[in-house]
Amino acid sequence: VQDENKSTAAKLPIGIFDSGVGGLTVVKQLKKLLPNEALIYFGDTARIPYGTKSPRLIQQYALEDALFLLQFDIKLLVIACNTASALALDVLLENLKIPVLGVVTPGAEAAVKETLEGKIGVLGTSATINSDMYAKEITKRNPNARISSQPCPLLVPLIEEGWINDEITALTLKKYLKQPLEDKVDTIIMGCTHYPLLETAIQKVTGGGVRLIDSGKETARKVKELLKKSGLLNIESKAKESQFYVSDIPDKFEEIGSLFLGEKLSFLERVDFDRFLISNKDHPFLKK
Amino acid sequence: VQDENKSTAAKLPIGIFDSGVGGLTVVKQLKKLLPNEALIYFGDTARIPYGTKSPRLIQQYALEDALFLLQFDIKLLVIACNTASALALDVLLENLKIPVLGVVTPGAEAAVKETLEGKIGVLGTSATINSDMYAKEITKRNPNARISSQPCPLLVPLIEEGWINDEITALTLKKYLKQPLEDKVDTIIMGCTHYPLLETAIQKVTGGGVRLIDSGKETARKVKELLKKSGLLNIESKAKESQFYVSDIPDKFEEIGSLFLGEKLSFLERVDFDRFLISNKDHPFLKK
Repeated sequence: VQDENKSTAAKLPIGIFDSGVGGLTVVKQLKKLLPNEALIYFGDTARIPYGTKSPRLIQQYALEDALFLLQFDIKLLVIACNTASALALDVLLENLKIPVLGVVTPGAEAAVKETLEGKIGVLGTSATINSDMYAKEITKRNPNARISSQPCPLLVPLIEEGWINDEITALTLKKYLKQPLEDKVDTIIMGCTHYPLLETAIQKVTGGGVRLIDSGKETARKVKELLKKSGLLNIESKAKESQFYVSDIPDKFEEIGSLFLGEKLSFLERVDFDRFLISNKDHPFLKK
Repeated sequence: VQDENKSTAAKLPIGIFDSGVGGLTVVKQLKKLLPNEALIYFGDTARIPYGTKSPRLIQQYALEDALFLLQFDIKLLVIACNTASALALDVLLENLKIPVLGVVTPGAEAAVKETLEGKIGVLGTSATINSDMYAKEITKRNPNARISSQPCPLLVPLIEEGWINDEITALTLKKYLKQPLEDKVDTIIMGCTHYPLLETAIQKVTGGGVRLIDSGKETARKVKELLKKSGLLNIESKAKESQFYVSDIPDKFEEIGSLFLGEKLSFLERVDFDRFLISNKDHPFLKK
């Protein structure tokens, strides 16, 4: 009977949320590694960004985003947002009955494996860096690691402006990377799902000797590992169509979204998120 | 009796809202021009920014912000946010019984007065520029005006990063101002409440021949004019303490807020805005 339950559970979708479109880079990796899995994505574009907001608010938003995805009877929740992973993973683990994976732990783990001299740089939003979560997860695995953390609040707006190969972006990266490079880091975690779009630009500033870690890519691997271990891999051989929900569809959204996903956004729907929250106001996951 | 009502109404506070701290530059101007008025400010820092979001969402947010301020029995509402003024002034005028002033019309009016050749540049967020509201308000007053509009999504993040006198900000301004300067504008509207902090940097790129219009400053003048005309000026000689409410208090908030206001934020309180909305879910101003 347990095996039967598992094979039913294996057919359930994976839920993924982010503050906006950045998490689509994680979806891209998941689709590549796990083409048989049904993916349901929620991007909280109505309240983006999270990275400049307070820990308390980020935790509330993350719980609400999870609540939305739980409607779809998901088997696993992926927090495809570094800020929400850094600030709210514990809150979600505490409140949800299904497994939850964030992007911070897989990124930290990979960096510890990759580094030669134990000198690791972390780039992220202000909230992610202030949380010190990457540093904690790294130190847990290598107590001697030397960590150089750098908040990079301008990178997301630069990417969303489309200035990927721009002199201004290059100068901004030089400014943000100055301290980590002075600290002689040999490995850098791109601790925000937007940053892999700047991988080439970052590598140009660091030079080829520094390894760049894409937390999203590492997370996709972890998801596959976890599903395998727990017998929840969907072994049906039909590729599933993903579903994308967002709380706002601003100008140029589908264009930017497709840039992150690497293909056209198929099933895309706007959710009236305020209404959703109001109709769920007595839900045990929401603060009274 | 009507005069008595008016003198009572004159003692009521003025409500001001913005998506965050930018509107504090308008409060600064109001405090200077109208030291006897009680000011109540609401900054929607939990959902900032508005300038990258959809018109529909901006209208909903503006209505909700207004609803919050209406609790204080205000005599006048000032939309101290260019994006919300451009997208939601009509909706607020339609729904509220008190007078409502946005920053767009006063800015457009001033530009039409100042321009020598009728060539006007407009800088703003993507949503403000897409709304075309400045262009409409200018053309209404001068049908022959030539308008060069430029969305500048990076300026707010640059200012909030504190890079006011920075090479990167100068280069970004050069890029954004290229087209307007090619169009030979003689007057530029700083169509976002953040931009006056870059006044010197902008003027350096344009050269002294171009006049810069601070929509916030113009709005403060309009507020005084309107209160005078309608007999609602508070003539009590005691300077009032302002009250500041925000929906989130992130890291460094008071520091940045004080930068915009030009003095320390005195009475500052965080509102649990989701709770406020939920408890007002049947309010006639909110969409069902």
